[in-house]
Amino acid sequence: MKNFADALTTRIKELDNPTVMGLDPRLEYIPIDIISKWIQEYPNDNDASTAEAIFEFNCGLIDAVCDIIPAVKPQIAYYEMYGLKGLEVFKRTIDYARSKGMIVIADAKRNDIGSTATAYAEAMIGKTELTDGVVEVKFGADAVTVNGYLGIDGVQPFIDVCKRDGRGIFTLVRTSNPSAGDLQDLVLQDGRTVYQAMADNVNNWGKDLIGENGFSSVGAVVGATVPEQAVEARKRMPNALILVPGYGAQGAGPDAAVASFTKEGTGSIVNASRSLMCAWKKREDLKPKHFAKATRDEALDMRMKLCYALKERKYV
Amino acid sequence: MKNFADALTTRIKELDNPTVMGLDPRLEYIPIDIISKWIQEYPNDNDASTAEAIFEFNCGLIDAVCDIIPAVKPQIAYYEMYGLKGLEVFKRTIDYARSKGMIVIADAKRNDIGSTATAYAEAMIGKTELTDGVVEVKFGADAVTVNGYLGIDGVQPFIDVCKRDGRGIFTLVRTSNPSAGDLQDLVLQDGRTVYQAMADNVNNWGKDLIGENGFSSVGAVVGATVPEQAVEARKRMPNALILVPGYGAQGAGPDAAVASFTKEGTGSIVNASRSLMCAWKKREDLKPKHFAKATRDEALDMRMKLCYALKERKYV
Repeated sequence: MKNFADALTTRIKELDNPTVMGLDPRLEYIPIDIISKWIQEYPNDNDASTAEAIFEFNCGLIDAVCDIIPAVKPQIAYYEMYGLKGLEVFKRTIDYARSKGMIVIADAKRNDIGSTATAYAEAMIGKTELTDGVVEVKFGADAVTVNGYLGIDGVQPFIDVCKRDGRGIFTLVRTSNPSAGDLQDLVLQDGRTVYQAMADNVNNWGKDLIGENGFSSVGAVVGATVPEQAVEARKRMPNALILVPGYGAQGAGPDAAVASFTKEGTGSIVNASRSLMCAWKKREDLKPKHFAKATRDEALDMRMKLCYALKERKYV
Repeated sequence: MKNFADALTTRIKELDNPTVMGLDPRLEYIPIDIISKWIQEYPNDNDASTAEAIFEFNCGLIDAVCDIIPAVKPQIAYYEMYGLKGLEVFKRTIDYARSKGMIVIADAKRNDIGSTATAYAEAMIGKTELTDGVVEVKFGADAVTVNGYLGIDGVQPFIDVCKRDGRGIFTLVRTSNPSAGDLQDLVLQDGRTVYQAMADNVNNWGKDLIGENGFSSVGAVVGATVPEQAVEARKRMPNALILVPGYGAQGAGPDAAVASFTKEGTGSIVNASRSLMCAWKKREDLKPKHFAKATRDEALDMRMKLCYALKERKYV
């Protein structure tokens, strides 16, 4: 069984690109020609035209970058909002990305008590027993994001599946949103902040799943928006694989985005969603139908910027 | 627009029963006759037989208690684990319970940054814009549970939908699982614990949505397993509607379950999942096909015990 952290860090190295493309499809991100085509195909079924437009757009994005970006991160909220047909596209997107050799991180931030966390873990990264004892993979992502507010017994079932099936998790430590500090930056009696306490938990939880490359399949989410905190988080979690949101549309630049990487420039992966998906909107030289080229150009530019920032580290 | 907290507290009063039935269907909870029937109906489709067995069981449970229990709480993990067909049953269960006059709390513990929280809020309790500007309700629950680790901007989109559509949320404050204290009981510099800080946040977030009955549609989840903390949580959130997990199979008895109720015996609702769903397994006098009667008897017993505990308060 290949360790998830090894699989991801190896692929990052092969492509020399620590980028994950977020797939958060909203209708307004999709070129109108694609939408019109599917409305014509399903004139009386807006669920179907919505779903097929999203799927075609996602496939175009995946085709455009699968040889230069190691992983995708579909955010399930943007599929759930389109109901059952949307969730079907979530599943089809996972399958399509994996068929193109990409690693899939389901961004679902799941959390619950132990028995329920087991159900979530099996749904997202494991397998489920149906009638007659038939066992099937349901969503089949390679990794999933989780929220550790409930402590270890809400996370352990995910860790168990990681161990059994070679999967991974990323636990929220310090998020990238403006109000992240409402709770996460509160200072404890022992001098740590809440996010630092969570980082220490994640570091402990991951000890059994460290792969050959030195990173654990029990990873963390640490936003790029406050780079000093990203540096601190890395110190507390030397072996954690870190997923970095906040780059691009959310405001963080390349220097901040690489703040949580190790001194060797490894161990983290930077997410970009809107800046890659909507790259075509900034390109006056391209027609919207060439959205995939715009995304590929943006991905190459992002890779260059990250690699440069990793050479000239501003925050360590 | 009716305030959600008014709708729920009014219904609790009408039925004199502060109980919510959790619907966490696992195949092992379902009488074998139901499962066999659906395997015969769909001999080559275990997804379909699983889904239909769950739905028939859920409907039987809802029919058995809809005139004595005000609300149901389907836990989405137990539908997600059965894939797309499972999620379809989640939706059908919500619709069926509402058609029987029950209030539906989707237990999903959603959490994310603002833009993504908006997508979750519209999916679970709001509405979504599809192609051609068509707007549709997707899952259509009356309320949803959320996790506030990301602070106010991950919760505000839910509050906005609550205000607009008369819906409700329950934010995790102190959960009922054994490791809840890993993070939630850490002590801050100002002397509060993390869960108390979260309680103070929830109290502030809910101020604009207090209904005629004195409770806010921005509620909280406070487990029954540590009653002293439930009393403390109520003090910090005098107007919060409190959802109480942990009763029955998780270990808390009726005295602990009512610890978060106001002095007037109102404002909280106690969840029971396994003890109601699996009541038939303890009944040697009943055949499994009479599972619904076992659940109804158990629900009446639970109501009696809660009402008694509310008269003879042990924790206030």
